[in-house]
Amino acid sequence: MEILTSRNNAKIKLAAALCTSADTRRETGLFLLEGARLCFDAARCGVPIESVFVTRSAFSRFSDMLSEIIPKSGAVYEIDEALQSKISDTKTPQGVFCICKMLDKNADIDTINSNGKYLAFEELANPMNLGAAARTAEALGLSGLIVNGGCDIYNPKAQRAAMGSLLRLPIYETDSLSAFFGMLKERGMTTFAAVLLDDAESLLTTDFSGGVVCAVGNEGSGLKPQTIDAAIKKIRIPMKGTTESLNAAAAAAVIMWEMMK
Amino acid sequence: MEILTSRNNAKIKLAAALCTSADTRRETGLFLLEGARLCFDAARCGVPIESVFVTRSAFSRFSDMLSEIIPKSGAVYEIDEALQSKISDTKTPQGVFCICKMLDKNADIDTINSNGKYLAFEELANPMNLGAAARTAEALGLSGLIVNGGCDIYNPKAQRAAMGSLLRLPIYETDSLSAFFGMLKERGMTTFAAVLLDDAESLLTTDFSGGVVCAVGNEGSGLKPQTIDAAIKKIRIPMKGTTESLNAAAAAAVIMWEMMK
Repeated sequence: MEILTSRNNAKIKLAAALCTSADTRRETGLFLLEGARLCFDAARCGVPIESVFVTRSAFSRFSDMLSEIIPKSGAVYEIDEALQSKISDTKTPQGVFCICKMLDKNADIDTINSNGKYLAFEELANPMNLGAAARTAEALGLSGLIVNGGCDIYNPKAQRAAMGSLLRLPIYETDSLSAFFGMLKERGMTTFAAVLLDDAESLLTTDFSGGVVCAVGNEGSGLKPQTIDAAIKKIRIPMKGTTESLNAAAAAAVIMWEMMK
Repeated sequence: MEILTSRNNAKIKLAAALCTSADTRRETGLFLLEGARLCFDAARCGVPIESVFVTRSAFSRFSDMLSEIIPKSGAVYEIDEALQSKISDTKTPQGVFCICKMLDKNADIDTINSNGKYLAFEELANPMNLGAAARTAEALGLSGLIVNGGCDIYNPKAQRAAMGSLLRLPIYETDSLSAFFGMLKERGMTTFAAVLLDDAESLLTTDFSGGVVCAVGNEGSGLKPQTIDAAIKKIRIPMKGTTESLNAAAAAAVIMWEMMK
């Protein structure tokens, strides 16, 4: 097995770029996963793995999971312990990394279940919100997520917060949520926009029966006006405190809970 | 106004230690806040501010908020732009920092409202979960939080995620949640433990009337057995996916939502 020891090795440089750059991820169609459990989850759910990077100590420490990851990978490299900080997004890396091929997440709208329950995110800026919301979506049994702009689903922080949910859930990427909402409406689905407006319906009385999708907007600026206009109903989470709003992942959690109960 | 330019200045070293070390925070009774808005919120809600550090460019950029912060602070220092990375927990600092005195958060149990709604956290490891949950708690109108072990409420990541809620909410720190639960029970409150056990009552049918407190445990290991034993009722959030559990902040959000509606 090849041992990589140089920071200038082309494979290490690629892994480092995939860790930090959404542009590199988009251009190459590849992304980097970090952590034994997350790489194991990727192997389990059929994500194509191009290469695995493992430190000497991680080989023994995670031998169980690696025995499932390595046979599914195109190549395996041992990397110097000192090198891993260059390709890691964490303070204390575990020493297991995979370069994976992106899944086809521009999934055909025809695969949307018109009786299903979906959450849509518009321009989410914080990848940990996206990841945490995906984890909640899978735990509560949502049909899938729709993602428009903002941080990409292959951001390492999003992938870690999602604990595999972003790999397992059906995800639809769209460059216009208002247009996407229009197509879902034509299929008989009810489209909702979560807003902070007083004239919106309270989540306490919202009827989520049938096929539904609810949009949650950017942490700072909320949903775009055209997305709010494209929604059949505006809903709000009633709030009492002096905080201006809920964190996007917390708002999404409460909405998904009401959708699914 | 004194201008600080050296990384070895005693005030800068103290600020840096308060940013990274829970021990230093505990020993000194001080903590560091970062960001114009958070320092402004602290000034607004009466947190004692010992000193403010501001970069040259931040003076003009945040003049409105600083005009409220500076009069309430014991001292003001200009710091070199290059110095702020030493005392910052963020990648792109705004150039506004305060050293504050801790509030008396070992609040007397007698100030607990025995008809109120409280969430208790045991050994939360991720400060962003604690901060996000505090923000949700304030937005939904909870009476306060109870915190046992784990990351401290003055952790800079917790304070940032909380957006001021950890400064405004009543917070009770305890070194034994089971003992604290015992005292709340004596006051007629119903104590709940959120667990992943099948024999627990579903959150869908939980009655949260009257004074209630619900405990949420560590992200990896959940609640301690003695805390679960000390609770009157065990509850679980029904889940469907292959994820093992919800993120602690998401679980707390859903529980608080059900408590408050």
